[in-house]
Amino acid sequence: MVVSKSWTMVRHFEGVPKLEDFKLIENELAPLKDGELLLESEFWSVDPYMRPYSKLSLKDGDVMMGTQVARVVESKNPAFAVGDYYVARAGWKTHIISDGKELRALPSNWPESLPRSLALGAVGMPGVTAYIGLKEICDPKPGEVLLVNSAAGAVGTIVGQIAKIKGYVLLGSAGSDEKVAYLKEIGFDEAFNYKTVSSLEEALKTASPEGYECYFENVGGKFADVALQHMKNFGRIAVCGNISTYNDSVPQTGPYVQPLILFKQLRMEGFLIFSWENKPIYDEGQRQLLEWILDGKVKYNEHITNGFENMPAGFIGMLNGENIGKAIIKA
Amino acid sequence: MVVSKSWTMVRHFEGVPKLEDFKLIENELAPLKDGELLLESEFWSVDPYMRPYSKLSLKDGDVMMGTQVARVVESKNPAFAVGDYYVARAGWKTHIISDGKELRALPSNWPESLPRSLALGAVGMPGVTAYIGLKEICDPKPGEVLLVNSAAGAVGTIVGQIAKIKGYVLLGSAGSDEKVAYLKEIGFDEAFNYKTVSSLEEALKTASPEGYECYFENVGGKFADVALQHMKNFGRIAVCGNISTYNDSVPQTGPYVQPLILFKQLRMEGFLIFSWENKPIYDEGQRQLLEWILDGKVKYNEHITNGFENMPAGFIGMLNGENIGKAIIKA
Repeated sequence: MVVSKSWTMVRHFEGVPKLEDFKLIENELAPLKDGELLLESEFWSVDPYMRPYSKLSLKDGDVMMGTQVARVVESKNPAFAVGDYYVARAGWKTHIISDGKELRALPSNWPESLPRSLALGAVGMPGVTAYIGLKEICDPKPGEVLLVNSAAGAVGTIVGQIAKIKGYVLLGSAGSDEKVAYLKEIGFDEAFNYKTVSSLEEALKTASPEGYECYFENVGGKFADVALQHMKNFGRIAVCGNISTYNDSVPQTGPYVQPLILFKQLRMEGFLIFSWENKPIYDEGQRQLLEWILDGKVKYNEHITNGFENMPAGFIGMLNGENIGKAIIKA
Repeated sequence: MVVSKSWTMVRHFEGVPKLEDFKLIENELAPLKDGELLLESEFWSVDPYMRPYSKLSLKDGDVMMGTQVARVVESKNPAFAVGDYYVARAGWKTHIISDGKELRALPSNWPESLPRSLALGAVGMPGVTAYIGLKEICDPKPGEVLLVNSAAGAVGTIVGQIAKIKGYVLLGSAGSDEKVAYLKEIGFDEAFNYKTVSSLEEALKTASPEGYECYFENVGGKFADVALQHMKNFGRIAVCGNISTYNDSVPQTGPYVQPLILFKQLRMEGFLIFSWENKPIYDEGQRQLLEWILDGKVKYNEHITNGFENMPAGFIGMLNGENIGKAIIKA
């Protein structure tokens, strides 16, 4: 009899999630039926989207949502062999029984030299988010100036490196000097610590006096108020995340963006990677990112929390900005 | 010696423009040089954009901006014949000396039966704004539900009628019962008076319980706060105007739109018709609108103020929503 552990959300979060909002439970799993397989999680992803989505789609006591890299440990489904690895979307669980339909295989040429956790990061959802958001929503031309915030995060670090490969001028904002140093190391033309600059206004103006053609938005809120002022006419804003508003119980307010959108003729578009998973560009992005990583053109960094029992702490730490690159939980 | 009268903006407007903010001046025009022509204005356009653009591009004492239909009364330019009509962008002036470069001829097949003022309305800038905004920015599919506010205005009335020709389901909001009646007369599926509904929330929900795919935005502000809540996933918002914010001295605030844009995967795009004037779609729109009007498929209404001396009053009345259809000043 296999026992699976799961982290549940005891109650909906108020403000920043707290350790006591989570509860570890255990379940005995039933024996496999024909067509089923049993997987054991090796790495889990913790991502900002889980905060707002808990509100939109979970009820008190539900298992937290999320994806993992998991290994087939038993199979009654001839299409799945024991020992193979998949990305599953099974929530915060150590063991999963699946019919295989919701599993995404790791790219077939996955090299031994790379940690499989990258399938949750630079070669997985956040990496492909960067790839698609940049290509399909921002659509910059070489020489155009791109602004990325939360730039040292799982998505931002990849946005930045793809942007440099493509020849865009690149400015990143992040929340610590260590992160800023990392951004410069991976090729950002300019980077600043938004927590310590005397004025965000000045920082954005100094970095690109003419303004920005593209803005890859991960933060929102007051950062966006200022950033939108610095967009060039016909600028494109890819709204990929909005982490500064996720912990609000009462929605924050700010000056209406519509007059700026109108008079600067901006295009602001929200996108969720889940809507792109079954399109060819998703696989294209994964293949391309894997190639760039193997060629050394894209570097990755992971912030690893060891132990499933520490997953809530890892999640809270990620929301607090403790990670450079991808926040990962390792079994 | 020809004397031209002009309306100047004495000082930048504070809140709603007032009559004393305008001053009528007279200028003696110099004799024409070779290559020049003299035009006399017949109709002037007053439009919402003049309010925010006065702030962006005029200084105290400048002649108010705007377009007119004007007739060539003298010509030292062989390309322009006396008696021909053009749309000029010469500001609030009775007479204009031009080198011809900034003039736009009325469509060549202009029928005698139609007032030339339509070249400033249904067949001019506002009509083409509706045509392009709907086609290029909203891009609805037949059967999709479209929301238009300021629906009885110069742009809204044309948006609505094009939408019906194309087979979209159509909801309009306007500011009087008379306007609502007019909207139903010209084919809106639903229309309501936003000033008298008990709840905008309820009005939008009742009109389309499933929500809206497209939103043609002329108003902004608190109307938009509610409307955005009712957008369907992947909805498109064409930001064409924002009249509820134009008279603000201090920018209004509201809940941030970015979380909604993100989680509903909306696209919000601002557009100014001036950026489209030299593209083929502008002429296409004009030709198409003229054809629809001659076929009786698009109806027009004009709110005419007689006398150049009443132009400030006509402008203020338009900002206050006195017009159904296009607000025009007639010489």
